[in-house]
Order: sequence, then structure tokens, then C-alpha cells
Amino acid sequence: MLFPATDGSSYHLTSPVLMPRAAGFLWNRQMMIQMNCRGFAVAQFMQPEPAKYAYAPNLEAKTFMQPEQPYYAHHPGRFFYVKDENTGEIFSAPYEPVRHRDSEFCFSPGKSDIRWTVKCSDLEINLRLALPVDDVVELWEVSVKNLSGRSRNISLYPYFTPGYMSWMNQSAEYRKELGAIVASCVTPYQKYPDYFKNQHFKDKTYFLHERDPAAWQVQREAFEGEGGLHNPDALQHEQLACDDARYETPLAALQYRLNIACDAQETFRFAFGPALDDAEIKHIRERYLSEQGFAIAREEYADYIASGSGVLQIETPDDGLNNFVNHWLARQVFYHGDVNRLSTDPQTRNYLQDNMGMSYIKPAVARHAFVHALSQQEASGAMPDGILLHEDAELKYINQVPHTDHCVWLPVCLKAYLDETGDFALLRETVSGSDGKILTVAERISAAMSWLLSSRDERGLSYIAQGDWCDPMNMVGYKGKGVSGWLSVATAYALNLWADICEQNTINTPQDFRAGADEINASVNKHLWDGDWYGRGITDDNVTFGISKDKEGRIFLNPQSWAILAGTCTDEQRAKMIKAVEAQLETPYGVAMLAPAFTAMREDVGRVTQKHPGSAENGSVYNHAAIFYIYSLYTIGEADRAYKLLRQMIPGPDMQDFEQRGQMPIYIPNYYRGAYHQYPRTAGRSSQLFNTGTVSWVYRSLAEGLFGLKGDGSGLRIEPQLPADWPSAHVTRRFRGAQLHVNYRRTNDVAGLQVWLDGVQQTSNRIEGLEAGKDYKLEVVIGDER
Amino acid sequence: MLFPATDGSSYHLTSPVLMPRAAGFLWNRQMMIQMNCRGFAVAQFMQPEPAKYAYAPNLEAKTFMQPEQPYYAHHPGRFFYVKDENTGEIFSAPYEPVRHRDSEFCFSPGKSDIRWTVKCSDLEINLRLALPVDDVVELWEVSVKNLSGRSRNISLYPYFTPGYMSWMNQSAEYRKELGAIVASCVTPYQKYPDYFKNQHFKDKTYFLHERDPAAWQVQREAFEGEGGLHNPDALQHEQLACDDARYETPLAALQYRLNIACDAQETFRFAFGPALDDAEIKHIRERYLSEQGFAIAREEYADYIASGSGVLQIETPDDGLNNFVNHWLARQVFYHGDVNRLSTDPQTRNYLQDNMGMSYIKPAVARHAFVHALSQQEASGAMPDGILLHEDAELKYINQVPHTDHCVWLPVCLKAYLDETGDFALLRETVSGSDGKILTVAERISAAMSWLLSSRDERGLSYIAQGDWCDPMNMVGYKGKGVSGWLSVATAYALNLWADICEQNTINTPQDFRAGADEINASVNKHLWDGDWYGRGITDDNVTFGISKDKEGRIFLNPQSWAILAGTCTDEQRAKMIKAVEAQLETPYGVAMLAPAFTAMREDVGRVTQKHPGSAENGSVYNHAAIFYIYSLYTIGEADRAYKLLRQMIPGPDMQDFEQRGQMPIYIPNYYRGAYHQYPRTAGRSSQLFNTGTVSWVYRSLAEGLFGLKGDGSGLRIEPQLPADWPSAHVTRRFRGAQLHVNYRRTNDVAGLQVWLDGVQQTSNRIEGLEAGKDYKLEVVIGDER
Repeated sequence: MLFPATDGSSYHLTSPVLMPRAAGFLWNRQMMIQMNCRGFAVAQFMQPEPAKYAYAPNLEAKTFMQPEQPYYAHHPGRFFYVKDENTGEIFSAPYEPVRHRDSEFCFSPGKSDIRWTVKCSDLEINLRLALPVDDVVELWEVSVKNLSGRSRNISLYPYFTPGYMSWMNQSAEYRKELGAIVASCVTPYQKYPDYFKNQHFKDKTYFLHERDPAAWQVQREAFEGEGGLHNPDALQHEQLACDDARYETPLAALQYRLNIACDAQETFRFAFGPALDDAEIKHIRERYLSEQGFAIAREEYADYIASGSGVLQIETPDDGLNNFVNHWLARQVFYHGDVNRLSTDPQTRNYLQDNMGMSYIKPAVARHAFVHALSQQEASGAMPDGILLHEDAELKYINQVPHTDHCVWLPVCLKAYLDETGDFALLRETVSGSDGKILTVAERISAAMSWLLSSRDERGLSYIAQGDWCDPMNMVGYKGKGVSGWLSVATAYALNLWADICEQNTINTPQDFRAGADEINASVNKHLWDGDWYGRGITDDNVTFGISKDKEGRIFLNPQSWAILAGTCTDEQRAKMIKAVEAQLETPYGVAMLAPAFTAMREDVGRVTQKHPGSAENGSVYNHAAIFYIYSLYTIGEADRAYKLLRQMIPGPDMQDFEQRGQMPIYIPNYYRGAYHQYPRTAGRSSQLFNTGTVSWVYRSLAEGLFGLKGDGSGLRIEPQLPADWPSAHVTRRFRGAQLHVNYRRTNDVAGLQVWLDGVQQTSNRIEGLEAGKDYKLEVVIGDER
Repeated sequence: MLFPATDGSSYHLTSPVLMPRAAGFLWNRQMMIQMNCRGFAVAQFMQPEPAKYAYAPNLEAKTFMQPEQPYYAHHPGRFFYVKDENTGEIFSAPYEPVRHRDSEFCFSPGKSDIRWTVKCSDLEINLRLALPVDDVVELWEVSVKNLSGRSRNISLYPYFTPGYMSWMNQSAEYRKELGAIVASCVTPYQKYPDYFKNQHFKDKTYFLHERDPAAWQVQREAFEGEGGLHNPDALQHEQLACDDARYETPLAALQYRLNIACDAQETFRFAFGPALDDAEIKHIRERYLSEQGFAIAREEYADYIASGSGVLQIETPDDGLNNFVNHWLARQVFYHGDVNRLSTDPQTRNYLQDNMGMSYIKPAVARHAFVHALSQQEASGAMPDGILLHEDAELKYINQVPHTDHCVWLPVCLKAYLDETGDFALLRETVSGSDGKILTVAERISAAMSWLLSSRDERGLSYIAQGDWCDPMNMVGYKGKGVSGWLSVATAYALNLWADICEQNTINTPQDFRAGADEINASVNKHLWDGDWYGRGITDDNVTFGISKDKEGRIFLNPQSWAILAGTCTDEQRAKMIKAVEAQLETPYGVAMLAPAFTAMREDVGRVTQKHPGSAENGSVYNHAAIFYIYSLYTIGEADRAYKLLRQMIPGPDMQDFEQRGQMPIYIPNYYRGAYHQYPRTAGRSSQLFNTGTVSWVYRSLAEGLFGLKGDGSGLRIEPQLPADWPSAHVTRRFRGAQLHVNYRRTNDVAGLQVWLDGVQQTSNRIEGLEAGKDYKLEVVIGDER
């Protein structure tokens, strides 16, 4: 069973078996932790590259976060064994590794903490994980309550896993003077210059306790013995071994021997994290390891999360939507914009979109990010594949592969920022670039637009090189000739947006960008219109793909969505496209990115065909693509269709096959598995990855589309697109410092839209003169004729 | 308990708990498998770089083999669950994952197969793993015998682990037409050129069966369910699920339902390995998957191993030595020389020494290797850090760090080859080099010697750059000034050896190398003699280290051993050094490489101080260093001391704290943990790594030193150094095609050494005119006066 807390700010999952992968996540300015309901954890912190303090049991590859994270017995975890000293019976909270079948269980990932309540053997264990705002440390509060009606002798064993830290040097000791188990390692390296970097690494993992334990154990294998992780030998003994670990896999296990009176409760606090040295461990102890320290950290963290609560609070007839938007959506947008997915070189398109989302959360951060990104523009006007956020950062992984779409995102994302803030002054800010030039923001974006126009072939279509937004489409144009249908229409869309902005702000452009857009649209219609939809591209060898004669990858979503945005299509074409998408891409789990999913390699398309069917770019409900289709539907007034598809994306217990998807409804994942027709068994499953550009666009689609409250020059335009079956809705919208209390009401009594501001009917659906700091009451009456 | 088989060709370990890390290893021309007694496995094959077909449960780093390999519950393994269908009782063979406590157990790693006998629940399970000579495939024969005195209904479930194959694409299916479970993946990549390489990778892992199973299961997590690996849910059902895996961690599990009559036995055959495609899987099935196929593979493999049996068979008063030398030592030498540690870019020093060992096993291979190595000599005369063995190979890992010792090993290793084969013609072979020159072997080695002479500082000592033989001593000379004491004396040794060879073969040298050696020896005595031993080096900042005033790393073994070999020291100095080594480096587990072990970083020495105390380069009994000390002792007639230290290295149940060391006595590991004084608890533990240059030198020390049967120009020199307490010994020595049956006898009746060849007393201890293909009887009488 899964149900939301009464105030919606957490969820309660009552079985670890029903949704074994269910997890919550917390982050702060230095770290992130994804905490699985059963006790497994994936955590990383920045130094400056992502690093770990709880390692796997083997030498794990350093890589980006994986979809559908595999768990296994010795996966890093945070466990609490409990033993009844009279009967010898054991169980563990939250669930792993003992997996006691008869426990009562409740997992509650909240906005600023993650909690469990586990009842087993007439004991109640409460666990609560919190993070502070700045330090890299997990704060664990654990209480044990005796429900048995008699006094009990039990042992409590916190069991935390530093893991296999290093092949070069690893050890662990109990350090009485620090009140901690300290596991130490040396980050392995071979080239001596790395020593000078590595020496600043936090190569110690500490497990600090508030109350002194009766005993401890720090050798993983000895603790388990032949009993194994689920029934460790160490628990057979009266007392843990109080050993040390010398190049043996470190462990941090403590033992508390408790005599608990009937109905009494005992509380413990622990802190787990990485440190450079003893001084840092001491500092953490002093700052946090007390009731007061935990309380202050909790308060500061709640304030931090509240500072990212965004500009929308809603009350609609749709409780699932209300809950997700009011509690979770802004939090996920804030996470992206605040820590940039814990990367030092976010992909340029991600960085720009994540900061587009920040326009609604912390516009000053977004502003800074646009300027920072432009400061790394290349002399040609092209944008680099990633934006470096740290002086030691380097372009890694996919950022070493040339993609051609990054410039597109500049006007696309900036438009949302300008609409939301009215900060048109940004356009005339100067930016010193790594290209050695000092140019205004507007000049730089114009240069980017000119680069896009120039990066086209003789047909006027945009080169794809080794990929566009679709990273793995890496073989369409690696010989330098292949073109992207999506990127062509995306370029047209960007050019139009930019021409609008420049026109509105009386900024001269070096070229007639609108004419460029028209030219591209004409080319796309000439070369890529396939009769009912647009093709995805044309390969180096002049093979058009994503078209009706293809058996696999016959239709791609993105070219259709963006053709709508770019104005490429006629109304007739649009109607055909929407029908084709409905027939071929819509599924009960959302709208898929392409179909049919590839089952074999197609060498002229590339890696996309090797991605697992039912996942990511190959046949999945790739939410980032889906939301653009939804956004495009809102721009053309397809309110009901847009809402239907949007709701498929919003996680909640009311979703189709919710449990099969396996994810707590506290974030939108980057994909739900697709390939619905080929692999119905797995369709709908969540990737469990909360890093996705989707959420900024969901936010924008809600603000601009569904609720239709969009900035427009110095004013606010009201163009709601509520679903037909909503009689009313209430929204609180923060806008440029003003607070708008908006009531929507659908009625048969009037025709068209009526807007009333503080009781005064407006002459148009655009209002001006809202003042920061003031509250306004906005009545929006939607006549049935509309 | 551990005991050798009666013929010594395997060992029997009767408890998986006593030595949980005990393992055997098999290899063939394409692959290697280290098979742990409990059922865990580490296997790799070449395509051409080392690759896996049974992966970890997470994304494991690609790296070199790690010391003290950590195991954990979901470590890749080969398991056989057994269930009594009447009682529901389960156990697993060999031991993991059920770990049934009441089983009888016997693990027998042999020379050409690895076997187990497990008795549990009145059933006897026999397992046998073999490899063919050429294909990458594990051949498993499994029999189940009913000992219960009544007929039994059981299910047998082979459980093999493809693991987490790839984040890009992974799946598994049962393929009836192939008679196999086939798990498939796509090796992940991001840069498109990698696609063209990767498409030839064996991305399928097959598990072929001979007999059709009743059912199968291919999803790891579903198989385990909540019961876990040790008690999987799948075994609670009458039949496995016959499922498929779509981006779910693949598994290869089969179920056989057996009704076995009293005393009856059923036999099964399986094949497990990687393949490119179905055709390859079919080929493996056809070639191997039958009683006859297994039998032929077994025979061919036994012949293959026999072809590497070397030139020594011994019968001495020391049974442990006899067993190791007669059954295991040549096998380990052969492994190194035949597959070059499964590397495509072996370090030059390793490649030369491993092939020095091949001089005793397959001299033609050694010859080819010397020429091949020299063909990669740089124009300066320097040798590269690694030797590329494949056209696509690249210098990786430590081979990207410049080391200065590689040239030294040319004459040092070639000397053994020339002594063993008498193949002096090699010196005049021409070698076309990557430097564009065509030079003779002798000219190239002279160039290498000249490079060594030129790579010295103003004091005449050899630069260390970022390391010499001791890889991690990477900060002594990274600024370009630091020098190595060891490399200086090693250079002197190499120069002397080469001067001898050239003189004996009337080859002109471009310089007077002997004079160069003298000059170096003088410099070493001037700058590095510390009163009782030689220092290890002088840093960039002119700090001499490895000397008496150092608190840690006070004395290093290598400079002493090689000073003896190079003739650097006077007799008086030598006596002091030997005393110092005895006092500071000798331990019950062997002679340590340095002492006291470092406990903290010393920035001017480098990474050596960060290696775990008690392991590898820091404070361990690093056998490769130890054997050079032993070899040097033989060159000066220190027979008893040499033998004592040699025996500490030879693994066997008679070793000090044998079980604590944790290794089956079938190979010499690269280290036994040291830091004996700081960490006595862990001292002596085996690294479990059988890749080590040690073994070639053990072989050479036995042939040249202990048994004193060393080639000398066109003859054989007899200079035995048997321990004083051996009254007699018998050795069969193959030498240049002749077979010598050597009887050693110690007597009081004569003085000095008497040598009798086929009954004829010789006038000296050097015999000439031995003919290939003939047998000789050699009597060696050792007079007590000697």
C-alpha cells in the first residue's frame, strides 16, 4: 500500500516487497543521497567531481548515474540490526539485510527528511535521515520503543558500509577520542601529478555516535562470518569483536546493549560521511551530534527547501496533480538548478534548461547561469558541449562527443526567463567570453543563431554531426553530411523566438532570422514531410529515416512537437501529425519517443538502436520528449489532449500500473519504459532517475499552458487551458514579486474569457502594473463559448 | 584440513571455512579463470584486451587484477543448488550461496582441472571444471550420486551469473534451438569510432546444456525474491519460471528434476562462456558438449600442460619442495610465458623475465620474445615501458608512467637463455626496429647499455624519473634529479653481464662496459654506503633515504641483493649487509622488501608509502624482491641461508601459519603480507595473485643455485649448493635436449666435489659434449670438506 501523508508532504509505503526499488532522495549544496526503502543507498558528494564515502564491495566504475540502479546483497546500505538478548531472535530495520517477514513497515520519504517506522517483535524502530544545508554528512536519528508490555533486553547494531574503499590502502579503527569509527583509504592513482590533487580528497569515512556503544566491529567479512549478511555470526556473540581492519574491507558497526522498560523509548543519533582529517570529524561532531544540533540542522534544511518552493500553489479538482505540484515539482526543479545534477560539466542543453526552471525558483541564479554559459561561447558562435562550473572541471563522457543543438536552447530557455522576470536589461549586459571578446548577451545569442544558420547543408537542413539533443543518434551524420529533421525545426523555432525578442526590445540583428526560419521550414517541408508526419533526419548516405516505410523507428516524436512550435506545418499537416502520434506513440504509460522500438542495430542511425528496448532513447516514454509535445499542444490550444498526456507523466498512486512502475511519486523520472507493444511486461517501469530536463518544462507548461499565467513584456497574459471537465480551480501565482490569488470558474453564463482584478473587470486578458510585494485577487471566468 | 593428492598433482581442502579464499586457477591461450573453493570465480578472456563474460552485479571498473580479491554475496560464481523434492531441504555445491553447515567438502585444484566432491543430505555431488586449449569456454561436468539407500526425487539447479552486463542494453532468453540460455548485451560506448571496434566483441554469454532441463530462469532478482541468494524463492516453487529478462540483470539457471535410484548416479555437462553470435554458440556445442567432446578437450589440455613441464624433476629429502617443484612451479612459469599475464602491453621488465622463465619451458618462445621486445627499442637505446603484443594494443595504466630500469633486464634475462640453450647465434640475429634501424641483437643490447650509462647524474648514479622496478616510488625523481641506488647497482650488474657475454662471443662493444660498471660501483660506495648497508636512493632535493637515520623505510632489500650481484661491495660490506637484512628484514614469513613499513606519506619518496602496510611494495614480503636476495646468496655460496629463505616462499601445508595465509599451495603469490612488527595479525597473508616475476627466478635459483646445473658456453657446470642437512638428492635435468639423471650424495669419505658421468669420473666440474636425445647418469659426490 502507498498513500500520501495528510498534508501531502510525504508518502507512506507500507511494504518493502511491493515496490522494492522505491526510494526517496535528499540533497544539499555538496551532496545527494537516494535512499531506497529497504535500506540501500546511493550517495555522492562533490570534491569537485562526484565522489563516494560508502563504496561498493568491489572496485566500481566511476560513471554517470545509471537508470534502474541495480541493487544486490552487499550494495552500500544503512542498516540497523536488532537482537532480543533473551530469545536470540534478530531482525533489521528498515528491512535489509535480515528481511524479517512479519514486520510492520512504513517508509516515508519527505521533502526534507526520509523516515521509516518498523514494528517487529513488539519493538518499534523509528529511523529518520536528514541532511544539513552545507556539510557532507548524513544525520541519522534512531529510536527504539518497547511495545511488548514487559521490559526487554536487546542489542541494537547500526551497520553502515564504507565498503571496498581502495585497492591501494584501506583500514578502519574505532577512535574513542573522536567517538567514531573511522575508515581510511588512499584514492588510487598512478601518475604522480594526481597525488597533488588527491591529497585534498576526503579519504576518510566516519561513523560518529552520540552515545557510547558497548562494542564495535570494523571488519566486514569477520562480522558476517558463515552466517552471512542476513544472519551474521557477529550477532551470535554477546559482544562485537572490537577489532581493527588492515587492508580488510572496512565496516562501521556498533553495538548498544539496552534494557528498555515497558513502553519506554531510547533515542540515538549518528552522523555518517567523508572527511579529510580528524579535525573535520571533530567539527562535524561538535556542530551536529546532539539533539540541538540535529534540530538546528533540520530547521535550516527546511528553510532551504522552502526557499525553492516556486511560484505556483494550486487547488484543482485533481488531487493527484495538486499534491505533486504543491509539494514535489518545484523541489525537483530546485534540485536541478541548485546543484546542476552534481556535475562539474553539465551538458549545455541541460544547464540552460535546468536554469530555465530556476527562473521560477531563484531567477537571480538563472540570470547568472545564462551569462556564465555565454561566457564559454566559442569564437564561431557555437556553444560548447558542456559548461564548466569549476576551474578544475573538464568535459567528460558524452561531452567529448560533438553535438550540434546547444545553441538552440539559448533563446528557447531565455524566453521563459524574460517572460517570468521582465528582466530585459539582461539582453544588454556584457559578457567577456573565453573567445576573448566582450559582447552583450544579445550579440552573443545572435552569433549563436548565425552559427545555427550557417551549420546547414545545401538543402538548408541542419547538420547533426555525432548527435543532436538525442545523444545516442551518433551515426546519422558522423561523416559530416547527415542532417537532423528535429534540429532543423528546432533551429527555426529558436530563430523565430529570438527575432521576436529582438523586435520587442528594439535590438538589431545581424541577419533576418525570421527569414532564416521560413527558409528552414520550407526545406523541412520539402525534404522531410512524409505524408502524415515529419521524418527524423537524413543520413550521411542520403537515407531519410523516421518515415512510414521504416519497420522500426518509423515515427519520432520530437520533429512533430517542434514543427508545431516552429510553425513549420499547416493546420492540415498538424492534424495528421497529431493523429499519427496518437495512433503510434501514445500508450497507457505516456507518449513514446519513437516507435516501433528498434530490436537490432541500424548502423546508419547509431547507438539509439542499441539502447535497451523499453528504455531511454529507444522506444521509451522519454518524458523530456513527451513534455515538449505537451507544451506544443498547449501553444495551439489542444488543452484536453495536453492535459491527458501531462497527467500520464505525473507520478502518483493513481497512475496506470503504479506499482509495476516501482517509483515513489515524488519526482518525474527521465523515462518510463516503453516498447509497449513489444514488451508489455516491462512497459511503464520507472528509470528511477530524477535527473531530467523534463521538470522545468512541466513547470512552464503548467504556468503558461494549463493555468495560462504568462509574463508578456511588462504585463501578465491570462490564457488558461483548463481541462473541459474542471468547473473551477484556484491558483496562487507569485509573479515578479506580486502575489496573485487566482480563481478560475467555468460557466455557461458568459461567452469567452472574463478577467477581474481585485473586483474590477479588465478590458483584455493582459494585465499591467502589478507591483512587487502586493497581493491581488484575480477572477478568471471561462465562458463555455470559448 | 589440507593435504596433497597421493601423486601431488592436486590438493584437497576439506573445509571451505578454514581457508575461504582458497582458489585454483586454469588458463588457456585465450582466457584465465581463478576459481574459489566456495564457488566464486574471476575469469577473463582476451578480445584483445581483457574482458569478462560473467560480470559483477554493478558496473565494475576495468582494471588490472587486484590483490586480495574481495568476495561478496553477489560476486560472480558458479553454483549448483540441490533440492530434495520430498522434504524441501536445499543445499548448494560447492558451498555458496546456501552454505550448508553439515556438508562434507573436498576442493581439489589440479594441474589441468578443478574438482569438488560435496556430500550433503546423503547425496554426493561431483563438480569438475576444465578448459580446452583454444576456445574461451568453461567445461563443467556435474554428477549427482544417491548415497541414501533409497530412491530420491531431487531438483538440481545450475546457477551461473552473467551479472550486470551493460547499462546500454542487456537481456536474456532461453534458446531451445541452441540448447542454451543466452544473455546478450551491448558493450557501452560513447564515441562512435568505438562502435566499429565493439561490434566484434563477444557480447553474448551462453550457458549451454547437454541434457534438456525441465525449466529455466533468467531474471536474477525474480529468482531470488525475498528469500535471497542463500534461500531463493524460485526453489520454493515446483518449477522455475521460464521467464525472459529485458534490461533486468540476467541469470542463467536451469532446473533438472531427477528421480535417482539408490546408488545411481546422473551426469550433466555444461559449457559457459562468451560468444559473438549464435553460430559461435553452435560451434561450441558441436565441438564440446558430449562425453567425447569433454574427453578430447581434457586430453588435449593435459598435453598442453605437459608441454610446459620444464627441465627439472626432483627427489630431495624435502617433500614439500619436491611436490611444488615437480607439479606446480613449471606450470606457473609456463602460464606467465604462454599468455603474458593476459595483457596486450606487458611491462617490459615483466615480459623479459617471464620469457626468461620460458627459456626452461619453451626456449623458442623466449627467443622470439627477446627479438620482439628489441624491435620496439627506442632510437635512444632506451626500452619502452611496455611491449605491445597486438596491433591494437596501447600502453595503459602504469605503462604510461616513465620508468628507467627496463634496459637492465635485457642482459640479465638473456644470460639465463644463453646459458640454458647455448643459442649464441641469437646475438647476431638482426632486428628491424620501430626506430627504423636494422641492428643485431647484440648491437641493440649494447645501445641499451649505453643508454643506461648515459642516464646518470653528475655523481654517476642512475636517474629514477617516476619509478624504477619499484613502480610506486614515483616521487623520488619526478623533477628529473633524483637517483636510484638499486638501479645504479643493477646497471653495474647488467653492464658486467653484458661485457662477459660480448667477450665470450668476441663481440665488440661501443664502450668499455666493464669500466662503466666499476665507475658506478665506486659512485654507489661513495654516495650510498650507509655504514651497514646501501641506501635506496637520493631524492630530487638531495635527501638520501633507505638509511639508518630513517624511522620508516630504513632499509630496502633490493640495493643489497643487487650490490652482491654487481660486485659493488667488499666481503666485509657484504657480511654487514647480510647481518642487517637478517636483523631488520627477515621474518617468519619471508624476507621483507623494506622495513619498517611506512605508516604515513613521505612526499619525497612517493606512492610506496601509501600502499597498505603489510602488502605489496610497502613492508611486504614481496617475493620478487626476496628471490633476488636468495639468488644473490647462491651466487656467493650462502647455501644454507639461501635455502632457508627460499623455503619460506614455497607454499605448502608445512608453512608457518599456513591457513592464515589463505592460499592453496599451487603457486607462489606476488606477496605475503609483511609489516610483521606493526601488524602481526595479518602478516603472512597471501595476495592471492599468481602474476609475479618471482617464479622465473625461483626456477633459475633452483637450476643454477640449489642444484648447480648451469649451462656454461658449450658445456654444463656442476656447482651444487644443497643444504648441509641433505645427505642425498636425485634430480632429472633436461639440458639442451639431453636427459641427465643426477644423483647427489654427501659423504665424509672424500674432500671437495667429485663428478662422475656415466660411471666415469670427470676431471672438472664442467662437462662438455652432451648430446641431445641421449640419457646420462651423473653422480655428484659432495665431500664434507667442500
